[in-house]
Amino acid sequence: MSSISPLRRLPVPLMDSILHRTRSMIPCQSRLFSATCQRRATVSLEALDASKGNRERIVILGSGWAGYNLAQQLSAKYQTLVISPRSYFVFTPLLNSTAVGTLEFRTALEPVRSRKKPNIEFMQGRAEDINFGKKLVTVEETVAAPREGRAVVGDFYEEESLDEAQKEKAKKRRKGKEWEVSYDKLVVAVGCYSQTFGTPGVRENAYFMKDVGDARKIRKRVLECFEIANLPTTSETLREQLLSFAIIGGGPTGMEFAAELSDLISEDLTRLYPEMVKKVKIVVRDVAPSILSMFDQKLAKYAMKQFTRQGVDVRTSTRVVALRKGLPHQKGHNEHMNVVADSQGCYTLTTEDDGEIGVGMCVWSTGNMMNPFVQRELKKTHGFPSASATITSSPAPKEPSAIDWMIEKHPKTGAIVVDDRLRVQLTSVSPSSTSSTAPHPFPATPSTATVSDVFALGDNATIRNNPLPATAQTASQQALWLAKRFNKDDLEKEPFTFKNMGIMTYLGDSKGLVQTGGVMGDISGRAAWLIWRGAYLTMSISWRNKFLISTFLNWAFGRDISRF
Amino acid sequence: MSSISPLRRLPVPLMDSILHRTRSMIPCQSRLFSATCQRRATVSLEALDASKGNRERIVILGSGWAGYNLAQQLSAKYQTLVISPRSYFVFTPLLNSTAVGTLEFRTALEPVRSRKKPNIEFMQGRAEDINFGKKLVTVEETVAAPREGRAVVGDFYEEESLDEAQKEKAKKRRKGKEWEVSYDKLVVAVGCYSQTFGTPGVRENAYFMKDVGDARKIRKRVLECFEIANLPTTSETLREQLLSFAIIGGGPTGMEFAAELSDLISEDLTRLYPEMVKKVKIVVRDVAPSILSMFDQKLAKYAMKQFTRQGVDVRTSTRVVALRKGLPHQKGHNEHMNVVADSQGCYTLTTEDDGEIGVGMCVWSTGNMMNPFVQRELKKTHGFPSASATITSSPAPKEPSAIDWMIEKHPKTGAIVVDDRLRVQLTSVSPSSTSSTAPHPFPATPSTATVSDVFALGDNATIRNNPLPATAQTASQQALWLAKRFNKDDLEKEPFTFKNMGIMTYLGDSKGLVQTGGVMGDISGRAAWLIWRGAYLTMSISWRNKFLISTFLNWAFGRDISRF
Repeated sequence: MSSISPLRRLPVPLMDSILHRTRSMIPCQSRLFSATCQRRATVSLEALDASKGNRERIVILGSGWAGYNLAQQLSAKYQTLVISPRSYFVFTPLLNSTAVGTLEFRTALEPVRSRKKPNIEFMQGRAEDINFGKKLVTVEETVAAPREGRAVVGDFYEEESLDEAQKEKAKKRRKGKEWEVSYDKLVVAVGCYSQTFGTPGVRENAYFMKDVGDARKIRKRVLECFEIANLPTTSETLREQLLSFAIIGGGPTGMEFAAELSDLISEDLTRLYPEMVKKVKIVVRDVAPSILSMFDQKLAKYAMKQFTRQGVDVRTSTRVVALRKGLPHQKGHNEHMNVVADSQGCYTLTTEDDGEIGVGMCVWSTGNMMNPFVQRELKKTHGFPSASATITSSPAPKEPSAIDWMIEKHPKTGAIVVDDRLRVQLTSVSPSSTSSTAPHPFPATPSTATVSDVFALGDNATIRNNPLPATAQTASQQALWLAKRFNKDDLEKEPFTFKNMGIMTYLGDSKGLVQTGGVMGDISGRAAWLIWRGAYLTMSISWRNKFLISTFLNWAFGRDISRF
Repeated sequence: MSSISPLRRLPVPLMDSILHRTRSMIPCQSRLFSATCQRRATVSLEALDASKGNRERIVILGSGWAGYNLAQQLSAKYQTLVISPRSYFVFTPLLNSTAVGTLEFRTALEPVRSRKKPNIEFMQGRAEDINFGKKLVTVEETVAAPREGRAVVGDFYEEESLDEAQKEKAKKRRKGKEWEVSYDKLVVAVGCYSQTFGTPGVRENAYFMKDVGDARKIRKRVLECFEIANLPTTSETLREQLLSFAIIGGGPTGMEFAAELSDLISEDLTRLYPEMVKKVKIVVRDVAPSILSMFDQKLAKYAMKQFTRQGVDVRTSTRVVALRKGLPHQKGHNEHMNVVADSQGCYTLTTEDDGEIGVGMCVWSTGNMMNPFVQRELKKTHGFPSASATITSSPAPKEPSAIDWMIEKHPKTGAIVVDDRLRVQLTSVSPSSTSSTAPHPFPATPSTATVSDVFALGDNATIRNNPLPATAQTASQQALWLAKRFNKDDLEKEPFTFKNMGIMTYLGDSKGLVQTGGVMGDISGRAAWLIWRGAYLTMSISWRNKFLISTFLNWAFGRDISRF
């Protein structure tokens, strides 16, 4: 097993200082076999109630960085119930690596149901509504949902080709059964959807990078493009388009994918398809004037130089206006034509600057949009939840129940506004024009209230007057802080504070960027890559040792039950 | 890394005697980096011809046990061209383990294109026709074929719901581009399709176990069945049907799947879904009066006892007559109804004995049927290939070119008949009744001939008067023998002889069966399991060390490029 030693030779003190916090984000799961698995997953709502005993039930909506980490950290004095359409947690920083085959898909997955945490209950479903007064969540089942394991983009049920009436019908037909679950504490951590800015055709034709199904789709398509390009029957024009890969979005996710793709091609595919590799084009496009804008300018410049050296073409200040199936300049393209004999699944990107561009694949990574559940369903409160809400504005309204209340949202992002204890905030609704005849004097400034038993964290929440980056780091820190408060029952002790642990990214060709936020200065190049690789490697190993010896451990300690 | 030691403690002399041959089936690939990768994969037919130089070109149709192993063993003095719709080899004995999550999917895959074997060329496609006289293969491209990675059942293009004219149209529309490749030697190793005996609905609704896509589909469905059964909205009736798993076929593949599924449930799922596990039913059905008929009766009886003990219900002498979507006794079931809200993807099995049975999944494993390419396209020879065929019957016909010839097939299985050097056999066609006025005197017994440059091996071939089991062992031994003969240019030296190395299977609960064919007697129980597990483990390790430390080796030595 000498092959492990290079890892051990990483600059240990340097790595440790980085890892100290990254590792602390990840729950320690060394108890591989808990001898007493007394409380176990239950099936019916009655069984759920029965096994609850006199514990409080904490319902967590979502199984991402916030929801998963919170659930893992909560002590058994609570009955923890995770409700999520996805039965596993995705370790998103590893997705790019799985997409190019550097890592197994399952290294990036962790099932929510776990033999090691028998106090975590799980129901696969999607929250449809919350009743703050009755403390009930309405859940819709989603087990056999067709897009499971793929990024969610736009409306879950929406079908572009249908008119409004048809859409409504399709939605009804597809709607799963619903049930209600009561909570003592509720945590909203449903995250965000992928942002497409409504660009026509993007939702249907782009490749995203949010879930393991996306990574698999991308991996399959890249290899397919090379295989088709290599066929004797493929024309030179088609070949060039098959081997042209577009990445939209110059943030860390998009740039890391470009880096990994460039590595895959220059290190592996060049040996298998030497003639093809010369024709490959990787182009990253961003509307902004620069890429990796969260890094210092010096580091971002270094990154640009690296990408250029590796043949990754970065085009800034450029806008994509459409994406469709087929080859450029094919007018009247019939969607039902034989894709195999025709464009071999190629796509056409329309840009403001360069017109129509034929590509083999377009990876879309332009950030987040608010989850439709947060946007639409989490609006009105169905009355003032007197038992759990405290008025925070003054003068306090005399009859809070007489006013309409809604959940406060960030005016720009639409995220749920929370206080420094991550509690959901309510705001009174100014009476609409139709009720202007009402004698009730409405104050000029709306009243506000704090709900003591509903929390929101991660990408779908924003702390009032303290906006934080919508990253895994923020979500994890919030989850660990909230778990600690719940476990110790001392929410009032101190507010949540964010500790910037720095950011890092991979640039390809064994080079990276690390920006530590002042603690250690900035690092670029090979040392940064070692830290990047080492950090994720070690996180993954300490997390469940799955990275290196996954299969054997699995044989010894249990199988992977992540469904993908 | 002490976790590996249990393996090292396997009964070494015992294991080695078993492994000696299994290991020898697998090409040694210790040269992880070949320093001189001079000859590399080429793109166009011109480049293929140019890189051929003065070497002979051996075209191999198929990338299964026969085709893959032959290609791996051929020396660089030949230009080896593999043509297969599948760009990887599937290590089929591990598929069952990947389906239940014991192993990673990629442990069971090996790409045909390999950095270590630059002399192997690959084209993804399906042979459509062979011209024996001109020595040409017509190939149709299949890269983006919809069912890639799944078992092939029945006609590749067939769509049940269409009439003949529509089928022909659909076939034409879907047909990929074609091209021709010339060969010096041709090896037909396209294997077989999964046999369904034409049972209605099986092709569309059953789960097969021949490719990695099948294994993934099964794994996803098993976990999905538990997840849906666990929902509060699922009725007791539906729950029972979701947790009822039917396996049709009591051969080693079906029985091993039953064993692995039983293990998965009793070892892992019981902790996650304790309420559900009590309701699980695993039923194996076979038309024959006994299971595992290739084993001695004593061993088969032991197996039956084991399965019964594990709660696997084995029903012999029972026939399945149909399989459809939906629940039992739902008349007029509409295929387009909402499957999510309705039967949750359940299936109904119709049996001769027990009537309609609702199941969550039906795994079909009833053996092989001849490949349609062998059955339909490999028929007539388009004239007598005078340059390569030798008449073997006497008296020899005076004018071989004047008679019609066809490829000799086994009257029952339809397999290509070969001689003891695996060469394809021709037989003269008796004149049809319409040409009865022809003056040409046709001999009472048909003439026969041997083609010196076209070979057939594996499941799609049968040696005249020497039928062998259609197993991986047979295919591998034939491939290694033929590679040796080609490399040494001594085909005439000695005929192929099969060495029975015994058979083994897994019974679940860490027990197995090994029947060594007399060498060491028969072994059952835990010792047999250790041998079974050890054999595949060691085969896999020596094969490319991927089993235990796949991910790390991969990081160090190159990525997995199997597309799935």
